[in-house]
Amino acid sequence: MMQKIVECVPNFSEGRRPEVVQQIVDAIAAVDGVKVLDFSSDADHNRSVVTFVAPPETVGDAAFAGIAKASELIDMTQHRGGHPRMGATDVCPFIPIRGVSMDDCVEIAKKLGQRVGDELGIPVYLYEKAATRPERENLANVRRGQYEGIRDTIATDPARTPDFGPAKMGTAGATAIGARQFLIAFNVYLNTDNVAIAKKIGKAVRHSGGGLRYVKAMGLEVDGKAQVSMNLTDFTGTPIFRVVEMIRREAARYGVGIESTELIGLIPQQALIDAAVWYLQLDGFSPEQVLENRLTGE
Amino acid sequence: MMQKIVECVPNFSEGRRPEVVQQIVDAIAAVDGVKVLDFSSDADHNRSVVTFVAPPETVGDAAFAGIAKASELIDMTQHRGGHPRMGATDVCPFIPIRGVSMDDCVEIAKKLGQRVGDELGIPVYLYEKAATRPERENLANVRRGQYEGIRDTIATDPARTPDFGPAKMGTAGATAIGARQFLIAFNVYLNTDNVAIAKKIGKAVRHSGGGLRYVKAMGLEVDGKAQVSMNLTDFTGTPIFRVVEMIRREAARYGVGIESTELIGLIPQQALIDAAVWYLQLDGFSPEQVLENRLTGE
Repeated sequence: MMQKIVECVPNFSEGRRPEVVQQIVDAIAAVDGVKVLDFSSDADHNRSVVTFVAPPETVGDAAFAGIAKASELIDMTQHRGGHPRMGATDVCPFIPIRGVSMDDCVEIAKKLGQRVGDELGIPVYLYEKAATRPERENLANVRRGQYEGIRDTIATDPARTPDFGPAKMGTAGATAIGARQFLIAFNVYLNTDNVAIAKKIGKAVRHSGGGLRYVKAMGLEVDGKAQVSMNLTDFTGTPIFRVVEMIRREAARYGVGIESTELIGLIPQQALIDAAVWYLQLDGFSPEQVLENRLTGE
Repeated sequence: MMQKIVECVPNFSEGRRPEVVQQIVDAIAAVDGVKVLDFSSDADHNRSVVTFVAPPETVGDAAFAGIAKASELIDMTQHRGGHPRMGATDVCPFIPIRGVSMDDCVEIAKKLGQRVGDELGIPVYLYEKAATRPERENLANVRRGQYEGIRDTIATDPARTPDFGPAKMGTAGATAIGARQFLIAFNVYLNTDNVAIAKKIGKAVRHSGGGLRYVKAMGLEVDGKAQVSMNLTDFTGTPIFRVVEMIRREAARYGVGIESTELIGLIPQQALIDAAVWYLQLDGFSPEQVLENRLTGE
């Protein structure tokens, strides 16, 4: 059995006081089984993003510890910044990495939402895969009006009624808690400087242009090369190899090819192994055949 | 930092008394950081193969514990079996898996060889990448004559002088200790039942036929399909994707294609990730971008 892993990427409305961010990170890291992979602050946005992983049994506790600490230290009535926000902990998504399903992550999100509402008195909206209403799947809808707008309407507008907690905002504001797939930032460079081709290909492959369901894409110029810049929002639904081969075919139609590709940030092992299995035509492959997967758990 | 891992696959000359094999496995497993992945016995060969992994710091100690226990429990003067053999621990290779080099494994083999020679009084021959003479790289050369033949010539034939330990065999016989790459057992099925094509392709891709350096291959029929059956003896030198694409091209010359491929047993993660990176043209990819590689060590 492989070690089970959930990723959590809470965003906090503090990007100017490092000591505050550090206290939040410390509260998260103190929970059993947690490994903080990264955290970074943006002073203009006045916002910090923490990335951590933990087993499904404790990942919710760690998120709760961070949310509780942020509610103590951040006062939304004083917050100014360039990024839309509605709470001290603005958003808290859970992402299945290994040995856990999306349903597991939805359960973790709901359990945490209940606790945050009950114990901290913070209004919680479930979003993305954990959403209880279709219009709440999209975070931008949930956060519309931001802290000040939601504070003024939450008690009176039924569309604003939170999933958990009081219909009343304190200094910690409101928090969106949810579950989503791992987001892969992936770019394809063409062997041409003709950006018009990258733009056409971007439109062809992206969901909004009639293309692949879990692809956001646009064409642009980077260092004198035409690039198709993408976010792959669910690599289990639209695998990376299918995106690459579709771009390869579209590019060939214009007489160009793929020069190289690049990955920005992290990728789950599974996304790369899926590509290897597909290209190598490895029928009957089992993850248990990867030697490293035998090394953890029991 | 990733967790460092060395694999060790000692072969013991006992395949009929499970209680003896279990005691050897227990001695190995008792060493700090060891994880026994598998062990299996063959009664006809009267031989057992143990596969375990451990950090570079303790993998040699674990092998020593197994060799010491085998030398207590196995008497080569009484051993009969269908597989060539020369010692209670017949062969003990170290294989780099993660965060260690082949040179590291050669060092581990030499240090263990010294200890086995000095403390257990067993003649040790270094083989494969750890060999001190070119003619000892090949295990079959080292083991020629088997237990009885080596016992009778070791003191008088300079070609038989061991690298460590006395030039004299006791009941534990002699042991070959070395370092080698991970061996991948990999088969390619063609979409034809014409075995002659698989045989021609096998000859074209294998090293002995003028093909790729670290490939052993032959064509045969499996379940009515033509199969190219291979051992890839060094996937860092001859990567799996290059083998597949060469077979694809050779097959096309006969008007056939690859129907599927299969992996027998285990594969290091790196071999699959190398394939994904090559096919996806992921220039600038770093193993640190694999999320799971962030989870261990530090």
